[in-house]
Amino acid sequence: MDILSVIGIALAFVAILGGNFLEGGHIGSLLQLTAFLIVAGGTAGAILVQTPIDTFFRSLRMAFWIFLPPKIQGQAAIEKIVSWSNIARKEGLLGLETLAESEPDLFARKGLQLLVDGSEPEAIRNILEVELGTKEHQDTQAAKVFEGMGGYSPTIGIIGAVMGLIHVMENLADPSKLGAGIAVAFVATIYGVGLANLFFLPIANKLKSVVHVQTQFREMMVEGVVSIAEGENPRNIETKLQGYLSG
Amino acid sequence: MDILSVIGIALAFVAILGGNFLEGGHIGSLLQLTAFLIVAGGTAGAILVQTPIDTFFRSLRMAFWIFLPPKIQGQAAIEKIVSWSNIARKEGLLGLETLAESEPDLFARKGLQLLVDGSEPEAIRNILEVELGTKEHQDTQAAKVFEGMGGYSPTIGIIGAVMGLIHVMENLADPSKLGAGIAVAFVATIYGVGLANLFFLPIANKLKSVVHVQTQFREMMVEGVVSIAEGENPRNIETKLQGYLSG
Amino acid sequence: MDILSVIGIALAFVAILGGNFLEGGHIGSLLQLTAFLIVAGGTAGAILVQTPIDTFFRSLRMAFWIFLPPKIQGQAAIEKIVSWSNIARKEGLLGLETLAESEPDLFARKGLQLLVDGSEPEAIRNILEVELGTKEHQDTQAAKVFEGMGGYSPTIGIIGAVMGLIHVMENLADPSKLGAGIAVAFVATIYGVGLANLFFLPIANKLKSVVHVQTQFREMMVEGVVSIAEGENPRNIETKLQGYLSG
Amino acid sequence: MDILSVIGIALAFVAILGGNFLEGGHIGSLLQLTAFLIVAGGTAGAILVQTPIDTFFRSLRMAFWIFLPPKIQGQAAIEKIVSWSNIARKEGLLGLETLAESEPDLFARKGLQLLVDGSEPEAIRNILEVELGTKEHQDTQAAKVFEGMGGYSPTIGIIGAVMGLIHVMENLADPSKLGAGIAVAFVATIYGVGLANLFFLPIANKLKSVVHVQTQFREMMVEGVVSIAEGENPRNIETKLQGYLSG
Amino acid sequence: MDILSVIGIALAFVAILGGNFLEGGHIGSLLQLTAFLIVAGGTAGAILVQTPIDTFFRSLRMAFWIFLPPKIQGQAAIEKIVSWSNIARKEGLLGLETLAESEPDLFARKGLQLLVDGSEPEAIRNILEVELGTKEHQDTQAAKVFEGMGGYSPTIGIIGAVMGLIHVMENLADPSKLGAGIAVAFVATIYGVGLANLFFLPIANKLKSVVHVQTQFREMMVEGVVSIAEGENPRNIETKLQGYLSG
Repeated sequence: MDILSVIGIALAFVAILGGNFLEGGHIGSLLQLTAFLIVAGGTAGAILVQTPIDTFFRSLRMAFWIFLPPKIQGQAAIEKIVSWSNIARKEGLLGLETLAESEPDLFARKGLQLLVDGSEPEAIRNILEVELGTKEHQDTQAAKVFEGMGGYSPTIGIIGAVMGLIHVMENLADPSKLGAGIAVAFVATIYGVGLANLFFLPIANKLKSVVHVQTQFREMMVEGVVSIAEGENPRNIETKLQGYLSG
Repeated sequence: MDILSVIGIALAFVAILGGNFLEGGHIGSLLQLTAFLIVAGGTAGAILVQTPIDTFFRSLRMAFWIFLPPKIQGQAAIEKIVSWSNIARKEGLLGLETLAESEPDLFARKGLQLLVDGSEPEAIRNILEVELGTKEHQDTQAAKVFEGMGGYSPTIGIIGAVMGLIHVMENLADPSKLGAGIAVAFVATIYGVGLANLFFLPIANKLKSVVHVQTQFREMMVEGVVSIAEGENPRNIETKLQGYLSG
Repeated sequence: MDILSVIGIALAFVAILGGNFLEGGHIGSLLQLTAFLIVAGGTAGAILVQTPIDTFFRSLRMAFWIFLPPKIQGQAAIEKIVSWSNIARKEGLLGLETLAESEPDLFARKGLQLLVDGSEPEAIRNILEVELGTKEHQDTQAAKVFEGMGGYSPTIGIIGAVMGLIHVMENLADPSKLGAGIAVAFVATIYGVGLANLFFLPIANKLKSVVHVQTQFREMMVEGVVSIAEGENPRNIETKLQGYLSG
Repeated sequence: MDILSVIGIALAFVAILGGNFLEGGHIGSLLQLTAFLIVAGGTAGAILVQTPIDTFFRSLRMAFWIFLPPKIQGQAAIEKIVSWSNIARKEGLLGLETLAESEPDLFARKGLQLLVDGSEPEAIRNILEVELGTKEHQDTQAAKVFEGMGGYSPTIGIIGAVMGLIHVMENLADPSKLGAGIAVAFVATIYGVGLANLFFLPIANKLKSVVHVQTQFREMMVEGVVSIAEGENPRNIETKLQGYLSG
Repeated sequence: MDILSVIGIALAFVAILGGNFLEGGHIGSLLQLTAFLIVAGGTAGAILVQTPIDTFFRSLRMAFWIFLPPKIQGQAAIEKIVSWSNIARKEGLLGLETLAESEPDLFARKGLQLLVDGSEPEAIRNILEVELGTKEHQDTQAAKVFEGMGGYSPTIGIIGAVMGLIHVMENLADPSKLGAGIAVAFVATIYGVGLANLFFLPIANKLKSVVHVQTQFREMMVEGVVSIAEGENPRNIETKLQGYLSG
C-alpha cells in the first residue's frame, strides 16, 4: 500500500476545495459537465491516437501500482541468490534444477534455467539483458501514457476555454447567456491544468520510479546469476549485490 | 487496422463538438475559412521549409500507418530464424541459398545472403546495423515531420489570433465589423492548438512507436542471423530471441 | 555553513518586500491564507503522489544541505589514499586491515576491506561503482523532489488564480465581494511562481551540485583504491587524483 | 535547388497575407517600422552577443543552403570507392597516388593520402573521425545560430508589445495617440512569433538535416577508406556502403 | 577583443531605445527603480541560493570573457607539439625536461612532465582526461550561472508585474495612484524578459562556446602528448592534430 499516494490525493482535494470554500465559493461552480466532457474526452482521444494498443492496456494495469506497487524485496533476493551460489558450489550447476522449476519469478527462473543448461556467463548476460531491456522499455512507455495525458489535458483545457469565450462573444447582447460560456472557459482551464498537475504527471513519475526500482532489481538478479556462472565465491557475490541496495 | 486511432479521433470530435453543442453553441462558430487558411497554410509553409524532400514524401507515406500499421509478427519471425538455423546446422550455410532468393523481407534477405556468402559474424553485424540505423533514422525523421507541425501550428494560431485582434482594434468605431476579427482570433487559436494536440502530436508519437517496434524487430533479426553465423545451437537462439518479445 | 544560500534568501525577501514597500503597497496584500492553502497544499499533494516514500524522507534530510552542506575535503582524502598506498607497498595489502576497521567513511571502508580481502582490481572497481551509482541515483532523485515542486507550484498557482476569477465573475453584481476573488487570483500566482523560482528550483539545483561533488569525490576514492590494488606507485596515484580537484 | 524551401516560404506568405485580406484587413496594418526595428534589432543584438565570430560567418554562408543545398551523390561515391578498392587490389595502395592528387573533395583526398602513406586502418579511422567530428560540430553550431534567433525573436517581440502597451497607458487621456502604441504592441508580437516560426526555426532544422546528410556521407567515406586499408574485397565494401543509402 | 559582443550589446540598446523613441515614448518610462529592485534583487537571490560559492566566483571571472576571451592558438600549439615530438625522437623523452619546466600553460606542462617521467601512454591519457573533464565541468557550471539567471529573471519579472497589478486593484478608486502600479507591472516584465534575452542567455551561450573551444584545444593537446608517448612519427601527429582545427 503506497500511503504517500493516498495522502497526496487527499491533500490536493482538501487544499483545492478548502481554498474554494474559504474564499466563499460554491463547490457547484467547480462542477461543470460540458467542460469535463471537452477536457476528458479530448485528452482521451489524443492519447488513444498516440498509444499502441498493447501499451494502452499495460498502462491501465500499471495504474493500480499507484496504490499497490509490486513488492520488491531486495534483501531477500540477495539471500536467495547467495543460497543458489552455495548450492552451485557444492552440487554443481545441475543442483539448481529443482529450484529452477519451482521459482515463482519468471525472470529469475529464466536465469536459473540458463545456469542449469551450462550456458557461458557472457551468453547468460546477453540473453537476460535483452529481456530486461524489453521489459523496461515497455513499462516505461506505459508510464509515459500518463505523461502524455498530462501534456495534452492543459492544452485541451485551453481549447475548452476559448470555445467558452466564443460563446460569450456571440451572446454579448444577451447577458443571461453569458454565464454558461464564462463558466466553461474558466472551469475547462482548471480541469485541464488540474488533471495534469494533480493526477497525470505525478502518476507518471511515480510509475517511472517503480519501473526504475524493478529494473535495478532485475539488474541485480542478472549480476548475481552471471556471478554464479563465473563461479565467484558466495561472499563476494553478496558484497557486490549489496551495492544495489545501499544508499 | 489500428482500432485505437479510429476511436481516438472519433472521441476527440465527439467531445469537442458535443461540448460546443451542450454549451448552446453553433457548429458554425467553429468553422472559419480565414482562420483555417492562416493556420493550415502557415503550418504547411513552415514544415516545407524545414523538411528535406525525401523525408517529406516518406512522412506522407507513413501517415497511413496511423490506421494501417505494418504487420510485425515477432513469433513467426523467431520460428523462421530457428528453422534457418536448423537448415544451416544440417546442410551448411549454403543450404540457405534458395531461401535467401525467395525471402520477401528485403532486410532478412540481405542477412541470409551474407550468411550464404560466408561472411564473418562481426562483418554481418556491422553491415546489417548500418542499414538498420539508416532506416531507423530516416523513419524517425519522417515521424518528426508531424512533431514539427505540432510545434508550429499553435504559434501560427497565435499569429492568426493577433491579426484578428488588429482588425478588431482598427474597427472599434464600427461595431458591425468587430465580429469577423474576434471570430478569426478565437478560432485561429482553437485550430492551432487543436490540430497540434488532437492530430499532429499524437500521430507523431504513434509513428515513433511503430518505428521503434520495427527497429526492435530488425535488431532481433540481426541477432538471429549473427547467431546462425556463429553456429549457435537453435534452442539457444530461440531463448535469446524470445527476450525481444517478452514483457 | 553555505553563506550564499543565506544571503540569497535574504536578498530575495528584501527585494520583493522592499519593492512592494517602495511602490506604496501594504505587506498585508501579499499575505493571503486561502491562496497559500491552495498553492502549498496542491503542490504538496502532487509531490506526495509522485514520490516514493524512501525518496521523500531522503529529500527532507537533504534539505538541510542548503545551509549545512556535507564537508568534502578532497585534499585530505588524497593524502589519506597516498598514505594507504605507502602502507600497502611496505606492509602488503594486509597492512591496511586495522585502518579499514577504524575508517569512519563507510564507502572508503568498503574499499579498504576489498583491498584487504585481496580482490582483483576490476572486481573492486565494479563493486564500488555499483554502490556509487546507486547512491548517486538516490540522491539525485531526492534533489529532484524539489525540482518537481518547482514544476507544480506555478501551475497550481494558475488553478488558484482561475478559481479566484470564477469567484469574481459570480459576484460581479456585488462589488463588495470582488476583492476576495481578485486577491486570491493575484496572490496565488505570486505564491506559485515565487515558491518555484525563489525556493524550490534554486534549492534543487544547489542540491544537485552537492550530489555531483560527492559523486566526484567517491569516483576519486574508487580510482585511488583501484590504483592501490594495481600496485601503482604512490607518486603516480597522487598525480592522477589531483586531476579531480584541479580547475 | 531545394524546391520545398521555395514553395514553403511562398505558401506561408500567401496564407498569412491572404488571411489578412480575406478578413478585410489592410496589408499596411502589418507593416510597422518601429516594431520591425525592435524585433529585428534586438534579435540580431542577442545573437551577436551569443555567437563566436567564426560561427557567425559560417552561418551566413550556410544560409544559402536553404535554396541551394550542397550536392551529395551517395551512389556515385560508392562507385568511386569501389573503383579505388579495385585499384588497390591490383596495383597496391601506391596505385591510388595519382587519384589522391586529383581528388576534388578535400575529405576524400585526405583519406586517399592516408591510404597511400600506408597508415594503419585504426589510425586512418581515428584521424578521419576527428576531422569529421570537428566539421560536424562547427556546422551544427552554425545551424544553431538560426535556432537561437528563433528562440530570441518571440521574446523580443514581447518586449516590443509591452513597450507599446506602456505607450498606450501613458496616453489614455489622448485617444489620438493610442493607435501607435497598440499597433506596435500587436505587430511586434506577430513579427517575433512569425520570424521565429516561419523562418528561423524551419531554416535551422533544414540546415541540421543537410549537416546530418553530409556527416553520414563522410562516415560512409571513412568506412570505405578504412575497408580498403583492411584489404576487404570490393564486393563486400559495396554491400556495406549501400547500407548508408538504403531506407 | 570579442567585437561581436560589443556590436551586439550596442545594437540591442539602439534597437530597443530607438524603437521607444520612434514610437514617441520617453526613455523615462523605461527607467523604474522599484521594478529594477524586484527583478535584479530576486534574480540575484535565486541564483545565490542555487550556486555553490566556487562556481559563483568562477562565473564572475568568466564574465570578462564576453569581451576578452582567452586566446587559443591552435596552429601554434600544433607546431609546438610537433617540435616536442622531434626532440623526443632525437634526444629521447628526457630531452623534454627543460621544456617542461619552462612551459607556461599548466595543462601542457603536466603532459610534458608525464612524458619525462616515462609514464605509459594509457596512464597519461587517463590522468590528463580526468583533469580535462574536471576543468570542463567546472567551467560549464560557471557558464550555466548566467543560464540560470536567464531562467529566473522572466519569472521574477512576472512576480513584479502581478505585484504591480495588485497595487492597481487596491487603488481603483483613486486614479492618481494607478500609474505607479501599472508602470511597475509593465516595466518589470520588460526588465525580466530583456535581461534574460539580451544579456543572460546570450552571455551563457557565448561562454559555453568558449569553454567548448578550450576543451577541444586540451583534447588536441592530450592526443598530441599521448602520440609522442607512443612514439608516433611527427608527420602523422601533425596530420592527426590538424583535424581538430579543420572545418
